[in-house]
Amino acid sequence: MSVSDLSRKPDVNRQMCPSRLVLEHVTSRWGVLVLAALLERSYRFSELRREVGGVSEKMLAQTLQTLERDGFVHRDAKPVIPPRVDYSLTGLGREAAEQVWALARWTERRLDAVHAAREVYDAEKKEQAQSG
Amino acid sequence: MSVSDLSRKPDVNRQMCPSRLVLEHVTSRWGVLVLAALLERSYRFSELRREVGGVSEKMLAQTLQTLERDGFVHRDAKPVIPPRVDYSLTGLGREAAEQVWALARWTERRLDAVHAAREVYDAEKKEQAQSG
Repeated sequence: MSVSDLSRKPDVNRQMCPSRLVLEHVTSRWGVLVLAALLERSYRFSELRREVGGVSEKMLAQTLQTLERDGFVHRDAKPVIPPRVDYSLTGLGREAAEQVWALARWTERRLDAVHAAREVYDAEKKEQAQSG
Repeated sequence: MSVSDLSRKPDVNRQMCPSRLVLEHVTSRWGVLVLAALLERSYRFSELRREVGGVSEKMLAQTLQTLERDGFVHRDAKPVIPPRVDYSLTGLGREAAEQVWALARWTERRLDAVHAAREVYDAEKKEQAQSG
């Protein structure tokens, strides 16, 4: 990246803008679900893996590490035996999490409308295929 | 999917819940940017491709088709020569777009905080590697 790129205003529509990568971290398949879960409370790794259905250990670890490096997630390794690691949101992470949490709840709430739209779309496509 | 799954309350944390797939469409790399762009105005395909930097013709077409089928995007093919196709948001799409637009702008606004967090993270990792 050139100096002139760094000095430009962040713009997710610009291919090389670093803000686009941050947006991708926040909206990644597992990033969304991890942030939304952590908005409700802090979690240990294994608890979080149970909460977010279908995430592999590797993908969850990668997601948490990315979110930690971006300053969204705080990793708290307690010096106890057996080791205990808690994950929670930072202030910055909470700002992101509130938004993706709302988006996740919206998706659940509007699922019926999406299903209805798909039925119309599929019926139209079928009709076009038959008449075409 | 079994009947019992269909009758359960939508929950993006459940691996097989269809709401998760809808959330993935809305938050997909190109889905986010397309929805956010369309919130500002309607676009022709080629205009939208210029607006969303780096998207291939194929990925943009796929993204628009997915968003159209879900009921978020309206495709208006005008019977003119040369053919003209406009893409705009539906009411449902606008609800989603307002949220991802806000998230995109937030990411741009908070990019400096993310960069600062990464510097701290990387410095700590470097220190750990040297002392370890």
